[in-house]
Amino acid sequence: LNAIASGVLKGERVSISKAITSIENRDENSRLLMSELFPHTGKAYVVGITGPPGTGKSSLVSELAKVYRSRGHKVAILAVDPSSPISGGAILGDRVRMLDHSLDSGVYIRSMASRGDEGGLSRAARNAIRVLDAAGFDLILVETVGIGQAEVEIVSVAALVIVVLMPELGDEIQAVKAGLMEIADIFAVNKSDLPGADKVIYNLHSILSSRDGSSQTALKVSAKTGMGIDELANKIDEFRKLQIEDYMNQKRMKHLADELVRNVALNLYETAESKMRNNPEFKRIVAKVAERKLDPESATDLLVERLLGQSSKAKS
Amino acid sequence: LNAIASGVLKGERVSISKAITSIENRDENSRLLMSELFPHTGKAYVVGITGPPGTGKSSLVSELAKVYRSRGHKVAILAVDPSSPISGGAILGDRVRMLDHSLDSGVYIRSMASRGDEGGLSRAARNAIRVLDAAGFDLILVETVGIGQAEVEIVSVAALVIVVLMPELGDEIQAVKAGLMEIADIFAVNKSDLPGADKVIYNLHSILSSRDGSSQTALKVSAKTGMGIDELANKIDEFRKLQIEDYMNQKRMKHLADELVRNVALNLYETAESKMRNNPEFKRIVAKVAERKLDPESATDLLVERLLGQSSKAKS
Repeated sequence: LNAIASGVLKGERVSISKAITSIENRDENSRLLMSELFPHTGKAYVVGITGPPGTGKSSLVSELAKVYRSRGHKVAILAVDPSSPISGGAILGDRVRMLDHSLDSGVYIRSMASRGDEGGLSRAARNAIRVLDAAGFDLILVETVGIGQAEVEIVSVAALVIVVLMPELGDEIQAVKAGLMEIADIFAVNKSDLPGADKVIYNLHSILSSRDGSSQTALKVSAKTGMGIDELANKIDEFRKLQIEDYMNQKRMKHLADELVRNVALNLYETAESKMRNNPEFKRIVAKVAERKLDPESATDLLVERLLGQSSKAKS
Repeated sequence: LNAIASGVLKGERVSISKAITSIENRDENSRLLMSELFPHTGKAYVVGITGPPGTGKSSLVSELAKVYRSRGHKVAILAVDPSSPISGGAILGDRVRMLDHSLDSGVYIRSMASRGDEGGLSRAARNAIRVLDAAGFDLILVETVGIGQAEVEIVSVAALVIVVLMPELGDEIQAVKAGLMEIADIFAVNKSDLPGADKVIYNLHSILSSRDGSSQTALKVSAKTGMGIDELANKIDEFRKLQIEDYMNQKRMKHLADELVRNVALNLYETAESKMRNNPEFKRIVAKVAERKLDPESATDLLVERLLGQSSKAKS
């Protein structure tokens, strides 16, 4: 294990991959590994990239990585896909990207997929980011696929969130944007070589301008033609400079607090699940609910009480 | 409160709406309300409808409701949107649908949106389904918007899951389908008046035929032209007839067990959150993590131990 940790600290790719796999599997070494790596973290800048499917997030992330490489940064890309049950495998767009950067040791690309448990994925992603941070990548691009909780979760790992949109999204996707309006620092309207980009920017600006004191911004980019990618990187750097003090003090503390609350909840869930599933008493309670002799909320109370025991009941 | 419960049991729309709002808000009456309604549930058939954004789920659900109305069923539509933070408001497509069915007292339409907590939404949705069940709707169509956990969650409320696709989805959305392959009983390829529908059906069939003993099926529909909607309803009824015995005995027990585990976890989470957030000890632990003197996983263990107390520690 020490070999993996020291390999990560030297930036060795094989060790990084092994470390992340260990975290994904939550195997016996992952705990010790994280405790060894954790003191070496906190240096990387983490940018979250999200948005509706089909907007070309993967290509944009790849182009952004190229720009940052040309500026001398070490860049890691972490693609997190809670909608896919495929584990360890390459997420779509990944193979293309890997080829794009395959000769460059300054870029590391990794996908993480859900094993049916989104909370577990977020937790693993947070620790994977720490591995990449400890390995010396100073810019970590975290891309989430999917619409839903994943996008909200990205806010709690990233210093900065880019929401990728595109011209001519369907109505339903426009509605989804409502959920994205709050979390974006930068809106990147990708595929702006297509018609309609100005309209999207205009609409975004009219929403943003109605918000007092918002530092949100929107810009046109095209991963295909390269348009606006440099400007996007500049914009990220601007945010980074403005944020640094505030982020170190407040945002990071908030993120850590949120993470611990989530971790605790997840551990309690696992405890609850393992204690309950094969317990004959639990099965009896489920049967009573199925027979409509007990309603689900009362059954829940009963189970929580049994689980936390008398001591906790007295406290609460 | 009794007035609301008895109104629901009589199928009165105002009472149904009040009951669901009470559940959404988890107000003081919701518990008692659910315990009064619960014995009257278990009669409705619940169909889940999900799929990528832009495939026209809302219109399809609306057309399906019309077919079932013409066959004499009372139909409720519940649209669950974990990606939208807008609460109580109309989700896109809803207003159109409402107009469509506004003169028909045999159709009830309701949207539920997330308040930033997907677990809470699922729990509320489960109880809202029970309200509709108790109110005498014998077919409940539950539509989820979004890609991710919501689609997996729908499996644990629905007797049958329809995944809506369409011709010419982008590559990324095709990949998302991978996550949907497992949960679908029926694939409905909507907008099949457009070119490319046969190709989608062909691709689906070639995947499905490779699975031994799968009862999954795929068919072409068009909410716009009405094509295939009758056939879709027939297919649902077929499943329903085949399932009834099995569903009553096994699937429902499993769903209830899953629900109780989730509820317990959610209650534990809320307990954890409220106990931790304003606790000075918690703040000290967060600060230690921020200073890299303690790693997050060890901090989590420490917090779980404090929360569950000694009694539970001794037990586990």
